[in-house]
Amino acid sequence: FEMYLGRITSRSSETGAMRRHPSAHHGWKRAHDRFHGSNYAMSNGGGVVSSSTHLLDLLEEPIPGVGTYDDFHTIDWVREKCKDRERHRKINSKKKESAWEFTKSLYDAWSGWLVVTLTGLASGALAGVIDIAADWMNDLKEGVCLSAMWFNHEQCCWGSNETTFAERDKCPQWNSWAELILGQAEGPGSYIMNYFMYTFWALSFAFLAVCLVKVFAPYACGSGIPEIKTILSGFIIRGYLGKWTLMIKTITLVLAVASGLSLGKEGPLVHVACCCGNIFSYLFPKYSKNEAKKREVLSAASAAGVSVAFGAPIGGVLFSLEEVSYYFPLKTLWRSFFAALVAAFVLRSINPFGNSRLVLFYVEYHTPWYLFELVPFILLGVFGGLWGAFFIRANIAWCRRRKSTRFGKYPVLEVITVAAITAIVAFPNPYTRQNTSELIKELFTDCGPLESSQLCQYRSQMNGTRAYSDVSSQPSTPGVYSAMWQLCLALIFKIVMTIFTFGLKVPSGLFIPSMAIGAIAGRIVGIAVEQLAYYHHDWFLFKEWCEVGADCITPGLYAMVGAAACLGGVTRMTVSLVVIVFELTGGLEYIVPLMAAVMTSKWVGDAFGREGIYEAHIRLNGYPFLDAKEEFTHTTLAREVMRPRRSDPPLAVLTQDDLTVEELQTIISETSYNGFPVIVSKESQRLVGFALRRDITIAIENARRKQEGIMLNSRVYFTQHAPTLPADSPRPLKLRSILDMSPFTVTDHTPMEIVVDIFRKLGLRQCLVTHNGRLLGIITKKDILRHMAQMANQDPESIMFN
Amino acid sequence: FEMYLGRITSRSSETGAMRRHPSAHHGWKRAHDRFHGSNYAMSNGGGVVSSSTHLLDLLEEPIPGVGTYDDFHTIDWVREKCKDRERHRKINSKKKESAWEFTKSLYDAWSGWLVVTLTGLASGALAGVIDIAADWMNDLKEGVCLSAMWFNHEQCCWGSNETTFAERDKCPQWNSWAELILGQAEGPGSYIMNYFMYTFWALSFAFLAVCLVKVFAPYACGSGIPEIKTILSGFIIRGYLGKWTLMIKTITLVLAVASGLSLGKEGPLVHVACCCGNIFSYLFPKYSKNEAKKREVLSAASAAGVSVAFGAPIGGVLFSLEEVSYYFPLKTLWRSFFAALVAAFVLRSINPFGNSRLVLFYVEYHTPWYLFELVPFILLGVFGGLWGAFFIRANIAWCRRRKSTRFGKYPVLEVITVAAITAIVAFPNPYTRQNTSELIKELFTDCGPLESSQLCQYRSQMNGTRAYSDVSSQPSTPGVYSAMWQLCLALIFKIVMTIFTFGLKVPSGLFIPSMAIGAIAGRIVGIAVEQLAYYHHDWFLFKEWCEVGADCITPGLYAMVGAAACLGGVTRMTVSLVVIVFELTGGLEYIVPLMAAVMTSKWVGDAFGREGIYEAHIRLNGYPFLDAKEEFTHTTLAREVMRPRRSDPPLAVLTQDDLTVEELQTIISETSYNGFPVIVSKESQRLVGFALRRDITIAIENARRKQEGIMLNSRVYFTQHAPTLPADSPRPLKLRSILDMSPFTVTDHTPMEIVVDIFRKLGLRQCLVTHNGRLLGIITKKDILRHMAQMANQDPESIMFN
Repeated sequence: FEMYLGRITSRSSETGAMRRHPSAHHGWKRAHDRFHGSNYAMSNGGGVVSSSTHLLDLLEEPIPGVGTYDDFHTIDWVREKCKDRERHRKINSKKKESAWEFTKSLYDAWSGWLVVTLTGLASGALAGVIDIAADWMNDLKEGVCLSAMWFNHEQCCWGSNETTFAERDKCPQWNSWAELILGQAEGPGSYIMNYFMYTFWALSFAFLAVCLVKVFAPYACGSGIPEIKTILSGFIIRGYLGKWTLMIKTITLVLAVASGLSLGKEGPLVHVACCCGNIFSYLFPKYSKNEAKKREVLSAASAAGVSVAFGAPIGGVLFSLEEVSYYFPLKTLWRSFFAALVAAFVLRSINPFGNSRLVLFYVEYHTPWYLFELVPFILLGVFGGLWGAFFIRANIAWCRRRKSTRFGKYPVLEVITVAAITAIVAFPNPYTRQNTSELIKELFTDCGPLESSQLCQYRSQMNGTRAYSDVSSQPSTPGVYSAMWQLCLALIFKIVMTIFTFGLKVPSGLFIPSMAIGAIAGRIVGIAVEQLAYYHHDWFLFKEWCEVGADCITPGLYAMVGAAACLGGVTRMTVSLVVIVFELTGGLEYIVPLMAAVMTSKWVGDAFGREGIYEAHIRLNGYPFLDAKEEFTHTTLAREVMRPRRSDPPLAVLTQDDLTVEELQTIISETSYNGFPVIVSKESQRLVGFALRRDITIAIENARRKQEGIMLNSRVYFTQHAPTLPADSPRPLKLRSILDMSPFTVTDHTPMEIVVDIFRKLGLRQCLVTHNGRLLGIITKKDILRHMAQMANQDPESIMFN
Repeated sequence: FEMYLGRITSRSSETGAMRRHPSAHHGWKRAHDRFHGSNYAMSNGGGVVSSSTHLLDLLEEPIPGVGTYDDFHTIDWVREKCKDRERHRKINSKKKESAWEFTKSLYDAWSGWLVVTLTGLASGALAGVIDIAADWMNDLKEGVCLSAMWFNHEQCCWGSNETTFAERDKCPQWNSWAELILGQAEGPGSYIMNYFMYTFWALSFAFLAVCLVKVFAPYACGSGIPEIKTILSGFIIRGYLGKWTLMIKTITLVLAVASGLSLGKEGPLVHVACCCGNIFSYLFPKYSKNEAKKREVLSAASAAGVSVAFGAPIGGVLFSLEEVSYYFPLKTLWRSFFAALVAAFVLRSINPFGNSRLVLFYVEYHTPWYLFELVPFILLGVFGGLWGAFFIRANIAWCRRRKSTRFGKYPVLEVITVAAITAIVAFPNPYTRQNTSELIKELFTDCGPLESSQLCQYRSQMNGTRAYSDVSSQPSTPGVYSAMWQLCLALIFKIVMTIFTFGLKVPSGLFIPSMAIGAIAGRIVGIAVEQLAYYHHDWFLFKEWCEVGADCITPGLYAMVGAAACLGGVTRMTVSLVVIVFELTGGLEYIVPLMAAVMTSKWVGDAFGREGIYEAHIRLNGYPFLDAKEEFTHTTLAREVMRPRRSDPPLAVLTQDDLTVEELQTIISETSYNGFPVIVSKESQRLVGFALRRDITIAIENARRKQEGIMLNSRVYFTQHAPTLPADSPRPLKLRSILDMSPFTVTDHTPMEIVVDIFRKLGLRQCLVTHNGRLLGIITKKDILRHMAQMANQDPESIMFN
């Protein structure tokens, strides 16, 4: 029926007559009959309309290149998923033909597990290598192990049996630079020499890192999580997860961490794991040829990345689910869990920290917490929220300044400057000089009898009594006070430097600096509460549970709660953060303090701005990311958002059977749209389907090359059968195979909240708007993002890509 | 433009003339202009079309009852979510008006947290009460504590200081029934007396339970998880989560567990928690008035239920995510976690097991596992998968028989029979006589020096040496062999009885019996491997890691792996199951054996049928549940599924402005559809919107009651403005407020896999099918379920509800 209509219309236009709508001449009864007959006639009319889908068409006559994407374009999740199901059906139907096909189907079924296993193995191994190398290079700033150059400080002194436990850091095999060069270990000269060498190495590492990034792989800089979030939401950034990025990121990550800059390796490890996932997915056609399936592997890889970064497999899966992933089916959950476990086990076998744990700062506490302590925990949460909000604003302002001014053109100089300032300021203070992970470990660890840290110089320990229960809850000594001052300075230093560091052109993670800031603040609060409890143990608050000499306050727990709160404030993670920290402590007992702090931190942070740092960086870079967490709360309707607007030229549409190749090419060249709706005829405006610009271009080129008789004035038709043409006209070109005959449509009255929901949940790229069955306009993902930016009083032109 | 068109059409029909399509008389240019002008004219035409959505309309003139659902109907997620956003906007806009409004907005913002806190508190408390009561009543079958009637066996003997540790179960305060009645503790007479009293109490409890369920709350039977899954997917079953169900389920659950039937309390605890969630949600209008929001609370409640059932808060959240929930936004994840934690802490404070743990069978293992052991673990996985597949088939066949034959009409008799058989067969065997949870605990626990169980009667222990390392890996004694036989008999008994028990009209969970079966099988395999390793310690397999006398095999770990495998085979859970068991053991170390077994079990089970027991029961009961896990793999198109079919009468549609009230009522009474598409006119078949049957009926009744002048021949119109009518015609009835002007549409060429995806992800109830802009038909959720059943060669008429 539709074909019939189309033919009449096209014929009448050929004769130059005014077009008439044929159905207008029919009465009610006939229209009704035709309506109810037509759909069956179509599906049973013996080839009038084939019963295969447009996808089957596409597979029957595959045109190379159709169905792929350009760089910086958004994928069509629905199409990708359909393609995958089609491939699956094909393999399944062939399965019984021969043993070879059966093996292929088995390989296909298992490739998902294989690729996540390989990804887990590689991520775990790379994490181990990075941990060991960063440790060694970090110690290189202070000295070398003369007996074995490849040992770091700790390993160097393991072999030594001359030292007592308390002086385990000092051994003759380990030589500081002053000892090596000046031959003396003490005195102002050697201090200056060590200071100089420390700065020298830090600058060298930083310089090398930024040069490598600049020359070989510009995508290797930053934490990578904003980009991975964008990629997982269905955006194409070619090379972002490639082998060069992987190699350079791995090397420069080690250099950047060793340079002493205020950054961590946890975020970049997620990027490294995703690179592994992407590279391994090229081994399996199921994943390499399907952008949606590839993203399942990437989700699993990001879980593996967090798993090795924090030694928290379950936390990694929840991180992938909560923070980075967009499309997360249950199958992916299971595979992510597997990848995270494999990676964790590989890392444990490598044992980079020598404690058979996955992280440096694994802790176990033995004392319970008391209800009153929730007050300082919540205060730490408030601090974390404030820090997060402040950091996001300050860092974004600085990054925007870097982008907009001339200043951003000298990344090497910037890195060197920041590294120099960091090294010069950091060296005098022992808490900033040491590795940030080690600092966190020291702050998390409670004062036990064997603890030699300055933080634990309580009076009883000074007297030589070292029984466990005597250590804590003692009056503090000048040692603790000076440690407090140094911690305060370290806190200010870390806060300032982290703002300027995150966004440099070196790999830089945020987790460790944020946790360090929180841990310092938490430890300070913890010691303060401890001393308060000691001096005022007869207050009604402390009376019941905190006797004199009893071990009632755990300052290490405060450090951990503070770390979680600050990380929560910056990233706005919730469940995954609590689970990650829970896996660090291993006790259900401390979940309540953690939750209280993380929740407070999130609420306080959200009061100043709902975006986490990753969303803020996504917006800064203008990536087309449609956040699943942010609710669309406005009352606009689809017709207010759709294009064309009032002042725009009319919507560029294609008619189904009366365009010539030349007209089609003119439409394509005169517009820059990525796709065009195909309609029955200009006067009826009834929608037939949607054709992508890329596919049309490829199809025309392909036809010109392969099919004879296709000229500029060849008729192009999207219908099942060619329109009736005059005898002398050239051979027509059928483009039905590239036509998407099931475009998504909404009515113009649809509230935008529903449209946004559809885009998010189905992963659409565009949606057509109709009114009472007629095509009115189109809404693309970019239109939605622009509209959302406009509604939030932001610059809608900041959405840069398609 | 549309209105204009509508008016012309209706006027022409009034005059009885043949209808003409007005646009057919216009040329290309004019049609084009009109097309591109019309949408702007509409949105700016000063009231020609109001800019408010249909929802705003709905709120402006609220008709009581519109927007609610009938019992056994499916909710429209999109509409519910829009309603909620509207409510939120309203509260937000009023917030600044007064302090009272501000307080109300705060209350509204916090009500989500309040309701999950209350749910967590109530679930934890109820779980504690159920645990304690079931324990006491279970011991009542064997005897009473004379000194204090309300003590169970263990508590009774705590006070006794006469007994040694080994004989801690025997104390003078505790009297078995034989001692009480016959005055003697030993001998065949007392055995028979105890046997009789055991059976008597079991029958009494079972009888009481089934009578209470039958009389007061028929919904209280079964595990409840299939129904909760259905409810969470958007189905209404009034009273299923009501206060009566809660009360009766709590009481009868205690009775059913105490009666010794082969059932557990874990599944019903999820139902109990969901009842709590539902009841508390009535305190908050945000949740009570919105079916979609209420389901968020229920998701959190089910997490709390699993959290208290297994003492696994994270596992509970993952269970809710993986197994029961349908719509699970991240906000719900966070709140579920909170609810699960609160519930776990309440239960821990109640401390029902006296071990300050959340579960009876918390275990800690100290020996590592070896790679070779993966072989028996995988074998256990195979066993679990086979058991699961067998159980599902057997149980479903039995339940179907119960449904279809006369046999199902005597539920009380059936329960009594099964309880009698269970009690009579169970008593002689110590492993079946004891509480199933305690049996699992005993099987999970490794043989330590203090273990008095018959399972641990190794030779060294017989000799009196009780050093830890000597206990295990010893030659077994006749005691162990007899325990093996008893375990084998217990295994067969449990397998048979569980099949007949699940589905009885008493509350019955599957988790504990499944775990018990797996634990028995696992322990048997574990002891077998242990003995193998002892007698063949020079085999190459054992040589390297299993020396003579060394503690190399942990039979308790085998029991745990077997339990996980069997539970996985029955429910087909994966991640959540591993995490639940991981939380029971607390060691990352044993995740790999667990994963290997659970994965094998799932694959083996899936080879025999992809459904888990809950899905199978959902299908058995014909609930309209669209499983998010099951992939739709067929190539059918929307037009093959839509109604009307070829032989059906034409689609019942309403025209937008030329029906009278009488005609409308005729259409409604002659059909049984739940909604009707509204079109511009019969000849154009262009879609305007969708109106629900319930809403139309309510609106007409409401108008007749409230508006004067509405008669049978009043014109009904869905347009913005009334059609022009003859002067003597009665007052027309405007129904625009109940019209959904943004119905979901797909084209007839849309593959069904996409349609199914849209239904799942957006939670639709129906979708309209168009072809080139004309309305062709409708697809409802039921049509999809029928089609899927047909494709799977099942009876499509088994889908019973709307």
